[in-house]
Formats: sequence, C-alpha cells, structure tokens
Amino acid sequence: MGLDFFDVNGALVKTGGRTVKCVSGYNLTGLMVASEGTLGVFNEIILKLIPLPTYRKSMMAVFDEVGKASEAVAAIIADRVVPATLEFMDNFTIRAVEAYSQAGLPLDAGAMLLVECDGYPGQVDEDAARVEQVCKGLGARSIRVARDAAERDKVWEARRMALSALAKLKPTLVLEDATVPRSRIPAMIQAIGEIGRQYQLEIGVFGHAGDGNLHPTILTDRRDTGEWHRVEAAIAEIFDRALALGGTLSGEHGIGIAKAGFLEKETSPATIVYSRRIKAALDPRNILNPGKIIGGTAA
Amino acid sequence: MGLDFFDVNGALVKTGGRTVKCVSGYNLTGLMVASEGTLGVFNEIILKLIPLPTYRKSMMAVFDEVGKASEAVAAIIADRVVPATLEFMDNFTIRAVEAYSQAGLPLDAGAMLLVECDGYPGQVDEDAARVEQVCKGLGARSIRVARDAAERDKVWEARRMALSALAKLKPTLVLEDATVPRSRIPAMIQAIGEIGRQYQLEIGVFGHAGDGNLHPTILTDRRDTGEWHRVEAAIAEIFDRALALGGTLSGEHGIGIAKAGFLEKETSPATIVYSRRIKAALDPRNILNPGKIIGGTAA
Repeated sequence: MGLDFFDVNGALVKTGGRTVKCVSGYNLTGLMVASEGTLGVFNEIILKLIPLPTYRKSMMAVFDEVGKASEAVAAIIADRVVPATLEFMDNFTIRAVEAYSQAGLPLDAGAMLLVECDGYPGQVDEDAARVEQVCKGLGARSIRVARDAAERDKVWEARRMALSALAKLKPTLVLEDATVPRSRIPAMIQAIGEIGRQYQLEIGVFGHAGDGNLHPTILTDRRDTGEWHRVEAAIAEIFDRALALGGTLSGEHGIGIAKAGFLEKETSPATIVYSRRIKAALDPRNILNPGKIIGGTAA
Repeated sequence: MGLDFFDVNGALVKTGGRTVKCVSGYNLTGLMVASEGTLGVFNEIILKLIPLPTYRKSMMAVFDEVGKASEAVAAIIADRVVPATLEFMDNFTIRAVEAYSQAGLPLDAGAMLLVECDGYPGQVDEDAARVEQVCKGLGARSIRVARDAAERDKVWEARRMALSALAKLKPTLVLEDATVPRSRIPAMIQAIGEIGRQYQLEIGVFGHAGDGNLHPTILTDRRDTGEWHRVEAAIAEIFDRALALGGTLSGEHGIGIAKAGFLEKETSPATIVYSRRIKAALDPRNILNPGKIIGGTAA
C-alpha cells in the first residue's frame, strides 16, 4: 500500500500510505515493486493484511493423463471457481517427490492437482463440489478431500518438497516460471512436453497452475557443455511458446540478468528505451543492481 | 493488467499483459495509472473483469447524530464486514438532494448510510445482519432493507444526485476527496465540521466512507474574494487534518494543478525530486500535461 525508500543519493522517498485509496502523486509504489533493487533501497513497506479464512477444503485429484489434468485446470477457472490454491505436479515431479519423501503419492499418475478453496463455508462447499465434478468429468482416477488438518498438511508438505526433491536428482537445476493466461495452460503443458522431447531433456513441470504460472524445471549438469547448449535452446523455446500463447517470461521470479536479453521480445524496443530512461534518470552512475532487468553494465 | 501507450516521441511501449501474474520488466502499468497524462498517451488498456455478484442486499440506516453515523462506518469495518458499498451523506447533503429530487429522504436526520453487501447469499445475509446490529448498537433511528430492485435503485439514485443537487445551491462548488484510514472516519468528519464553523462556510460531506474516502464540498461564489480566501484556507486546513490522521490529499481524483503545491507535505522533498527526475527523463520538453502533479511549467 505504501513505501519509504532511499534513492541513490540516500534521500528518503515516501509514496502511498495507509488509506484504501490513494492517488497522491506518481504511483511510485507500483514502480518500485518488482524493480529488483535497481531504482532504490526499501526502508519501510506498508502491507495490506486480510483476515484468515474461517473455513477451507483441500483436495487431491489424480489423473492418468497429464493432458486431462491440464484441461481440468482451465475448466475449473472457466467454471468461475477461483480456488485459493490450484497446484499442478506432473509424473516426473511426483516420482521425484515420492523418492524423497515417501508421502504415498501415486507413482503411476500422469499428473495430480492439489486444490484448496477457502472463505465462507457454504461457498467453499459449493466450489469444492464443482471442482470435484469438473475433475470427474475429465476422467480423474481419484479425488480425495483431506479429512483434517494433518491429512491436509501431509499433501501440501509433499508439494512444498517438489523443488528440493528435483534438485537432488542432478547437479544443476534450471527453474523457469513462464506464465500464460489460465485458459492456455493445456497448450503450455503440451508445449513443454514437446520441447523436452525435441531437445532430449528431462523437464519436470509443477507450479501454480491456477495462476497460469508453471515451473518447467530442467535437470542437467552445467559442466556437460553439449547438454547445456540444448538446455539454453530449450529455455529460449519455452519463452517463445509462452509468449506465442499470450504469456509472459516471468510470473513471479522476475527478469534479473538471465532473462534481460529476452525482455524486448515480450514487450517492444520502445519499452526497453523507456525503461532505460527511467533507470538512467534515477541512477545515473548505474550503481543499483547494474545489469538487472534492462541489461547494460556499471559505468 | 497491462497497457500499450505512446511515449513522448510516439513510440509504442508495451507493459503487463493478460496473465494473472506478470513481473516481466518494470511495472510501467503501475507507474502510468494515475499519472494524469504526464508520462505518455494510452493506446490500449487490458482490464480484469470479475463476474457480477449473484446476490446483494441494500440497506439505508438513518442516524440522528452525524457522529454516531461516522462511528458506525468505522465499527462496520472493524467488525470485518467489507460491504461492496458504504456511502455517507450528512444532513446538509440530504436536504440538498431532497430539495432536488423529492426522494423521501429524512430531512431531519443527522446523517445516513447507504450500505450494500454482495456475493455469496449466506455470507451477504450474515454481513447484512452484522451491519444492522452495529447501526442499531450506535443508535440508528431506522434501518431499512430495500425489498426489491426498484426500491434499491431509488435509494442509490438519490445518492448519485448528491453532487448535482449541491451544485444547484451556489455558483461555485469545490469538491475535495481527502481520504483517511477507515478507522479515522469519525475524527475526519468531526474535523470538517470544525473547519466549516471556523471559516464560516457551509461544507457538505458525502462520499465513499467505507473506503475512508469523503467528499467535503464547499459551496461558494468565486467572485466573492473575501469568502474565496476563506475557502482556500479551509481547503488547506482539510488537507492538514487528513494528513495528520494518516490520510492522503486524494483518494481518487488525483493531484492535478490545484493540489500540486501540497504534495510535498504528504510525501517528502525527495519524493518531489524523484518524481521530477522521472518526468524530465520521459518528457524532456515538458509537453505532456505540463504542471500536473509535480508543478513546473512548459519550457
């Protein structure tokens, strides 16, 4: 809702505040959030808090086919149910997590969805019933509702382990966060499968499917130069496919240095010029996280 | 969610998109919204749509005392009910609207609240019952729930007329939109009353009280130089009191030229310098709405 931050000269800039509405001056809060430390140094952040939900329902839906699981994601959203969480794990990720955790996940499943609805009890129950109906309609092998907090925690614990479990398998893990409109999740998951086969790479897929936000994860060994070149080509291809589907290079992790060279593809040459003008005006000596987002190096 | 806009040279800048999450490059959407045409010219805007609520309940609560009505606003929010709309009208506004519309408003009321809850039926009914309880607890003289759409529309029509009705009374209408944290609504309404008495001005108050966003409205005649000076002093005092309560100069209308001189009081000298650096970098000849927000004139 608001920020205090230090500009490059150490002067304190104040923007936004504690009111629900505020249009007082430029929305520097909007500009600073996700600017990756390139425009100033945060001092104080005013956050909006929302009350904990009074009621929630957690479900695990298991599918034989990855394609059907991805269609279920799009169908749930199209049905105007917006779960608090709607997470996706493909077979590769399921096996990695199970090897690591022995949580009892279905090793032969094509994919599984973890869905949690929260809010007003009556609405949550209706939403959960609709999620179940959509998953059944798309041939889910099983749908299980967590009976209590312990069962719920066990399922989410498994999901939270995904990254650590995958990281154990190979020396190098490349985690992307290409994001597409939620209706394009099936096409994106299919595209990632094709790219893996084309470049002979194992690409695990898990992530926040309900936000259109996937984490294609490539397991490799950076010392293997030949394979590393295929990894780089596969990543570029993942970006291209996400953009072709109306998506973005990054749903939550940001651009950093690794994706700076791709940003113009998603936006436009004028976007890069405009962004560089802002950066040059606010940090003329380029000392705040140089090279991040818009490229370039320290003077 | 996203924008295409032309920069000052006519080049097309693209930012954001159609994904629920996007952190690809600087959040130029955030920067542009509310920038009052000073940083570029909008070409295309991508908006998020939400489904219409399936159910809603409209209520009108009438209070003898303006202070109790303002306390009810803060108490409703403190009770964790967030109505879709929570509007406030003081006696002055009620009388102006009634003279204009003959809607049957209570001419002797200190103030009235118009409250609408929407969403899932069970939750709406519970929220509406809590609103009623809070208003009764604070001594509301009457609380009436609209029985059908026609009755609902009649009440809201009266609210929508407030500005036109007030504008009829005097040659000049000055409408502010000082906004405070919602818990400070009672203190702000009290302060506006004091300022009106101090400067011998009629100040009507109505507005989106549920957002902390009030519209103190001063009726005057700009040709009356003596009174106009009192109006200017009263406005400055309203800003000071709103800021002292942790509020802002503007909840929704923006800074424009009229409030540019006050912005530093709300923010800091460094905020103005930072904002001017951005403006100078993106519009070096100062041809895009010069003077708005951060002052200064065209070169």
